[in-house]
Amino acid sequence: MSSLLATAVAHPNIAFIKYWGNRSEDLRLPVNGSISMNMDGLITRTTVHFDAGYEKDRLAINEIQVDGKGLDRVVKILEIVRAAAGISLKASVSSTNNFPTGAGIASSAAAFAALAQASVTALGLDWSEAKVSRLARLGSGSASRSVPGGFVEWYLGDSDEACYAETIAPKEHWSLVDCVAIVSSSHKKTGSTEGHLLASTSPLQIARAVDTPRRISLCRQAIFEKDMSKLASILQLDSDMMHSVMMTSTPALFYWQPETMAVMKKVQQWRDEGLQAGYTIDAGPNVHVICEAKKADEVAKLLKKIPGVQKILVSPVGDGVRIEG
Amino acid sequence: MSSLLATAVAHPNIAFIKYWGNRSEDLRLPVNGSISMNMDGLITRTTVHFDAGYEKDRLAINEIQVDGKGLDRVVKILEIVRAAAGISLKASVSSTNNFPTGAGIASSAAAFAALAQASVTALGLDWSEAKVSRLARLGSGSASRSVPGGFVEWYLGDSDEACYAETIAPKEHWSLVDCVAIVSSSHKKTGSTEGHLLASTSPLQIARAVDTPRRISLCRQAIFEKDMSKLASILQLDSDMMHSVMMTSTPALFYWQPETMAVMKKVQQWRDEGLQAGYTIDAGPNVHVICEAKKADEVAKLLKKIPGVQKILVSPVGDGVRIEG
Repeated sequence: MSSLLATAVAHPNIAFIKYWGNRSEDLRLPVNGSISMNMDGLITRTTVHFDAGYEKDRLAINEIQVDGKGLDRVVKILEIVRAAAGISLKASVSSTNNFPTGAGIASSAAAFAALAQASVTALGLDWSEAKVSRLARLGSGSASRSVPGGFVEWYLGDSDEACYAETIAPKEHWSLVDCVAIVSSSHKKTGSTEGHLLASTSPLQIARAVDTPRRISLCRQAIFEKDMSKLASILQLDSDMMHSVMMTSTPALFYWQPETMAVMKKVQQWRDEGLQAGYTIDAGPNVHVICEAKKADEVAKLLKKIPGVQKILVSPVGDGVRIEG
Repeated sequence: MSSLLATAVAHPNIAFIKYWGNRSEDLRLPVNGSISMNMDGLITRTTVHFDAGYEKDRLAINEIQVDGKGLDRVVKILEIVRAAAGISLKASVSSTNNFPTGAGIASSAAAFAALAQASVTALGLDWSEAKVSRLARLGSGSASRSVPGGFVEWYLGDSDEACYAETIAPKEHWSLVDCVAIVSSSHKKTGSTEGHLLASTSPLQIARAVDTPRRISLCRQAIFEKDMSKLASILQLDSDMMHSVMMTSTPALFYWQPETMAVMKKVQQWRDEGLQAGYTIDAGPNVHVICEAKKADEVAKLLKKIPGVQKILVSPVGDGVRIEG
């Protein structure tokens, strides 16, 4: 065998209970467990091609060659699968997104989920979903959650082996949508990987971590019971708690923009008026508004009216990573 | 004696290390110690008149009669001084502010400092500053800090007796100013008294409280060393920590408006560019920008250019409460 190839597609995910801070940076073992849904419609497609003709690993994102740290993170994953398969072929990795990179849509989550699955399949390894999830985690923590489909929990675990994500409810369980209000598509100043390193500098992080099992439990309940009001409450609280930690880190990380806050306030106002929808915000300025599919048109229409909102992306609950072709 | 009268003037204060949450609601013993400067130029003038002709206590704020809870808080203070003086005369309390009420300028702090001092003086009680500070505290916690002059620390204390404020540096020590960017003068939705009751519902409050001695110590150092860069850092962190607790309470308290955040971001940008100024925000939308007096014109001019900023109030460091006439 001198040429091995596979293509995988994966979706980003939006966390209802957020991941922020690692207890082991190297293994990306998180300080707290998290829950998310995959975002259908937003797709990363990654082809991994191991071939004797390559002298070194190479990476192209949206057809642009990437070197340095971006390539290093990819090589780390390739090294693991090569070691598992007992081969030494170098690879060409080519990844394309149909959504803007680095603006609060977790592009690295979809990217590393697709990379992990494509690498494993290309080398013919017979790995479980949990094992692929763990591999994806080593590239980007939240990528572990883009491997299984539907509603997903990433377990804290007490070891590398126990720290993976799995489906807690299939996408058919509950027709939710994520209406993303894009207020800026500029690249964020501080990426998540650097951000996680700062989490422990916030005096509030320890309290956030300690409180997580309570929030995880409330969020699971809200999903199992399909209780949108309960979900909206815990979504918003969890997002606000993560941003509290970010804003009180040294240096302070302010991902919220004035426009972000304008959307947050509107969503809260709609909730007070009886429209069940909740906001959650990742490491970027855009606002993810979660609601039931039957409310999506109304929510999207209202979001469009808010000054500063440039466009709306609407994502239903998506599948996990899968091999194409 | 059937008629006893005194008039006191006091300034609001702006906290560098904030007070949020009580360990005893009734005695207003705070969860954490705090540090502030009095705000010269903003004045509350309160006359207390005990007279045999009054059948009940009455209160006028800016010449409007106040009943209900507002009056009850004042009567509580009057009852204490009457008991100390051994008299039973009812009083008329008349208070006027030269600044907008209930919009993030701590009007209750100046009001209860002036009320406490005027009541004590009207009844001829020979009370120490610390004792007047404790009395003011019973009406509004932060009022304890408007009793002494200059830069003030309110001690946590281990009892009612030990829980008072005192000057840690006179106003002449350091020519600071507070440039208040008014982004809204509307009355705030949730007053501080109700807000303090919610502090313990935030999972982050305990971590904020535990970390306070560290922040108090940094703030004291910054004041003693007249180190504006150090002061700006701790100011902003402390304010952001309090608002983190507010935003993660149940129900959530969002005092920040989009315009508030626009000012915060500008101030941080100026700091990054070398202009030493720091923001701090109370339980309202306005932004207090602290800087050295020599930078006040530049800061005020820059603040005026930010969309959403309606006007700027500039306050140097002020004196404590004093009797007029």
